[in-house]
Amino acid sequence: MTYQPPVRDFVFLMKDVLKLEQYSSLKGFSEASMDVLEQIIEEAGKFSAEVLAPLNAVGDKEGCTWHPDHSVTTPKGFKEAYAQLVAGGWPGLGAEIAYGGQGLPYTLSLPFSEMSSSANMAFSMYPGLTHGAYSAILNGGSEAQKDLYLPRLASGEWGGTMNLTEPHCGTDLGLLRTKAVPQADGSYRITGQKIWISGGEHDMAENIVHLVLARIEGAPAGTRGISLFIVPKFLPDADNKPGARNSVYCDGLEEKMGIHGNATCVIRHEESQGWLVGEENRGLSLMFVMMNEARVGVGLQGIAQGEAAYQAAVSFAKDRLQGRSLTGPKNPEGPADPIIVHPDVRRMLMTSRALLEGGRAFLFWVALNGDLAHVHTNPDERQKAHDIAALMTPVVKGYLTDKGLQVCSDALQIHGGSGFTEHFPASQYMRDVRIALIYEGTNGVQALDLVGRKLAADGGRAVMAFFAEMDGFIDAHAADDDLKPFVEGLASAKAQLQEGTMWLMQNGLMNPDNAGAASTDYMHLFGLTALTYMWARMAKTVQDKIAAGETDPFYANKLVVGRFFLQRVLPDAAAHLTKLTSGSDLMMALPAEAF
Amino acid sequence: MTYQPPVRDFVFLMKDVLKLEQYSSLKGFSEASMDVLEQIIEEAGKFSAEVLAPLNAVGDKEGCTWHPDHSVTTPKGFKEAYAQLVAGGWPGLGAEIAYGGQGLPYTLSLPFSEMSSSANMAFSMYPGLTHGAYSAILNGGSEAQKDLYLPRLASGEWGGTMNLTEPHCGTDLGLLRTKAVPQADGSYRITGQKIWISGGEHDMAENIVHLVLARIEGAPAGTRGISLFIVPKFLPDADNKPGARNSVYCDGLEEKMGIHGNATCVIRHEESQGWLVGEENRGLSLMFVMMNEARVGVGLQGIAQGEAAYQAAVSFAKDRLQGRSLTGPKNPEGPADPIIVHPDVRRMLMTSRALLEGGRAFLFWVALNGDLAHVHTNPDERQKAHDIAALMTPVVKGYLTDKGLQVCSDALQIHGGSGFTEHFPASQYMRDVRIALIYEGTNGVQALDLVGRKLAADGGRAVMAFFAEMDGFIDAHAADDDLKPFVEGLASAKAQLQEGTMWLMQNGLMNPDNAGAASTDYMHLFGLTALTYMWARMAKTVQDKIAAGETDPFYANKLVVGRFFLQRVLPDAAAHLTKLTSGSDLMMALPAEAF
Repeated sequence: MTYQPPVRDFVFLMKDVLKLEQYSSLKGFSEASMDVLEQIIEEAGKFSAEVLAPLNAVGDKEGCTWHPDHSVTTPKGFKEAYAQLVAGGWPGLGAEIAYGGQGLPYTLSLPFSEMSSSANMAFSMYPGLTHGAYSAILNGGSEAQKDLYLPRLASGEWGGTMNLTEPHCGTDLGLLRTKAVPQADGSYRITGQKIWISGGEHDMAENIVHLVLARIEGAPAGTRGISLFIVPKFLPDADNKPGARNSVYCDGLEEKMGIHGNATCVIRHEESQGWLVGEENRGLSLMFVMMNEARVGVGLQGIAQGEAAYQAAVSFAKDRLQGRSLTGPKNPEGPADPIIVHPDVRRMLMTSRALLEGGRAFLFWVALNGDLAHVHTNPDERQKAHDIAALMTPVVKGYLTDKGLQVCSDALQIHGGSGFTEHFPASQYMRDVRIALIYEGTNGVQALDLVGRKLAADGGRAVMAFFAEMDGFIDAHAADDDLKPFVEGLASAKAQLQEGTMWLMQNGLMNPDNAGAASTDYMHLFGLTALTYMWARMAKTVQDKIAAGETDPFYANKLVVGRFFLQRVLPDAAAHLTKLTSGSDLMMALPAEAF
Repeated sequence: MTYQPPVRDFVFLMKDVLKLEQYSSLKGFSEASMDVLEQIIEEAGKFSAEVLAPLNAVGDKEGCTWHPDHSVTTPKGFKEAYAQLVAGGWPGLGAEIAYGGQGLPYTLSLPFSEMSSSANMAFSMYPGLTHGAYSAILNGGSEAQKDLYLPRLASGEWGGTMNLTEPHCGTDLGLLRTKAVPQADGSYRITGQKIWISGGEHDMAENIVHLVLARIEGAPAGTRGISLFIVPKFLPDADNKPGARNSVYCDGLEEKMGIHGNATCVIRHEESQGWLVGEENRGLSLMFVMMNEARVGVGLQGIAQGEAAYQAAVSFAKDRLQGRSLTGPKNPEGPADPIIVHPDVRRMLMTSRALLEGGRAFLFWVALNGDLAHVHTNPDERQKAHDIAALMTPVVKGYLTDKGLQVCSDALQIHGGSGFTEHFPASQYMRDVRIALIYEGTNGVQALDLVGRKLAADGGRAVMAFFAEMDGFIDAHAADDDLKPFVEGLASAKAQLQEGTMWLMQNGLMNPDNAGAASTDYMHLFGLTALTYMWARMAKTVQDKIAAGETDPFYANKLVVGRFFLQRVLPDAAAHLTKLTSGSDLMMALPAEAF
């Protein structure tokens, strides 16, 4: 079984559904015509399938190795693959042309991100985090910092990391203790221990640029006293080459359930030399700009691992002969039928597809809004796009990773006993994807961000706009008989989401625990509604194609999967609504000692 | 965090809910008064928590080691713990007194099974499978075979295994190829490769008794030509001591996602000497007697791993300080509140408890029916008990392991980033429990057994009896105001299950794919209804206690958890009903090539 890049689906979404060509005059979108884009996707698919995918199991089995001199060796083959990654210019896909990148908007770099993550999640995190560091410096750095660091991060010559978590604080960054002491030369000396630093040390890049949250001596307590620093592993010399070794050290690696090929480091800053990014005490807001982008990237990992696991399950289900179809042999010459004939296997495959294809559309739509929020020439469109992107980001992260785990677990289940052995890839996909529900803010934190912050922002403007957009679709196609199940499904989902939203507004203010108690079910109801909207839009696109004479079964199959979504996935919406409107009383009734 | 045996809950179920004392005159039940039973449970808890639990992480990290001489070494400490297990007489708890056991019915040995599995699932499988071998020989063996093997299996001196799966056949045993050739002395020579043989080779017992499915030369093809054989690793000598080495070899171990402490073996029979158990070609039915017992045992593993994972999550949630309660600080002196104050953490803990406590009750109730089916003196009661046990077995296995995985995954989630590291126990629980959804028949096979076989057996007599029993409860307590939410919840669940059952009867016969397509959702609807019935019975028990002046918060807390079940778990029933009644058309619409 080899990973098959879903190129066709990417092109369908970009060209047919989102019709990206309409944006071809906007910054970034103008860099690549649809033809060029298709070529990039093809190449990215080849690189992912041929270079990264073969190293996935190796990375899992071998893991990273820490040495007493604080160095870390990546699994066999990673270093060479990284060199190929840099040589191909892949890390710079979404970086500014001024800094040596290709200047593509985030939306257009999504296919590469998904495919490289499907092929090798642990590997793809190294350039992923480097891009995060790039964005933070791009957003908050001085011109000198940008000129020094951005070209090297964009090329991938230098790696990047995020140093946030400390042993006693993860979600609650206000508790952060790492200390920064100003020096006469304008730099800072930073001291403290950071944990869970992905890609914090490795042997693939000549330098590693840590972006570190720390508290300047005398800064206010809590989240308002946190600043962001650049701490390079090697201090750039006069020629901006890696020079003297900075006193930032990897003291060990975590043993983890998955993503073994990514070095998760304990990092010790011992008066390491760092430079402030942006203003003092404004580090958290800079970090959050980057975090929102990272959250969309984690949602993407849910889809990416799900896609790879689904493909492995399909391959197994077509291959494995066991039992006979309930409606008579389908492989009468053989000793048994392939298990893909069994309805319960189909149930898992079809559900996976409905979630993956709908989820991918959702991801592209949200990413597109994120891009338009920056580059659209019309300020109203920018605001509308910003609202949608901000509102949907926690849903993309939380809902798509929850569903990614479900897809990976079902893929393992389809493998039967083979799925539990490490001889097949299913176990690794399930173990790898599990982190996506946790990092960059647990899914519970996403749900709370959704109900506590995003929903109420600007008087609920974003969610109102989303309702209006869905209403617009429903009204426009109310008379379209072919689209009927989709329009009805969307109307039902939207009505339920609206009811849940009303309940939250009425009850969440009265008692904040009601909002907390409702949050995860609300996030799922939101995700289901968003995917229903995506399926409705895809169905409309497909109907138009078919009406225009298109006979490729790709399109007819989309309709089947979309209708399956309505029939077999959407019914969970009602359960989520019932649960979320039941309030927090029983949930919070027991004293902590009763657990 | 150390594992706390849920002794109180066991006693509540056995004494208060199921009122086992009413059966004290029946075979087996007469062996232990409630007082004695409580002592046994206390001791079993101590053994599990103090001897087995400390070896759980060791077993996971170290795993088993295969040696080129075909021997297998278990993880450090396992051999000594096994010796203590044997010395304590634990393997014989449920074995006949005639063969050196303590003669307890299965129900009364459940607490030991659950606690040892919670403490160390991989370890507990060795005696678990030995008991399976014991049961098969007890059911089908000759008197001579029973006299020779049963005392040694009951004591645990000898281990037991089940040799079913072959590389090309797991679920579909009709494809089995292992060959048995009759010998002049009445024994057989067996040749073939078996895979995934749990406990197939190890260093803890002086002998290992393989129960092997094989095809006698010339036997009919398919499932009607399969016989069952006893193949001891060492042939018993004249004194029934392990003598000459039999030609059955472990050729290697599987690398697995979890249960690393259990040796999952590739077993090669090379003209190994074996003896027929029961009649020729009747091996599968003998195996199925044992399989039904094993399936209940796997459902128990779902609860057992869930319980251990839940306890670890509670401990973490009380300990970890992060953020503040939405309703104001609960730990104002500390830097932050323990995360158990957050509603979304509570949601996961309360859901886990509702599933675990309800699931445990379900397990006990089904196990009790399984026992009564054998030992009740009234033939009508025996038949009724048999019907319930047979009908519920696939639900216990499939539903409780699906939910066990959910509980373990939520427990990991509560740990945040720590849950993904192997430094905390959450990852191991989730990895270990994952196999329970697969072995002894995947959960999809359980669902098919339920809709395809158990439901229709004897004209639907069993399910009708279950409906009648629930109706009886509803009628008896219709006027009980205190019990109202439980009676209403049960009436609603029962009505939905009945509607789903009707739909299946009407549509499953017409098109068997409809039954297959509905099966998993139907199994979940069934499980939800069964747990609702259990919660209603527990609530009634508790109300009676409280009415009688009982003030222990254990009882009041039960009611809170039960009502939480109705509010936050049961709503899924409606979604399952909607899905299952949507039929198989869309599910089966795509040709296999479209995947």
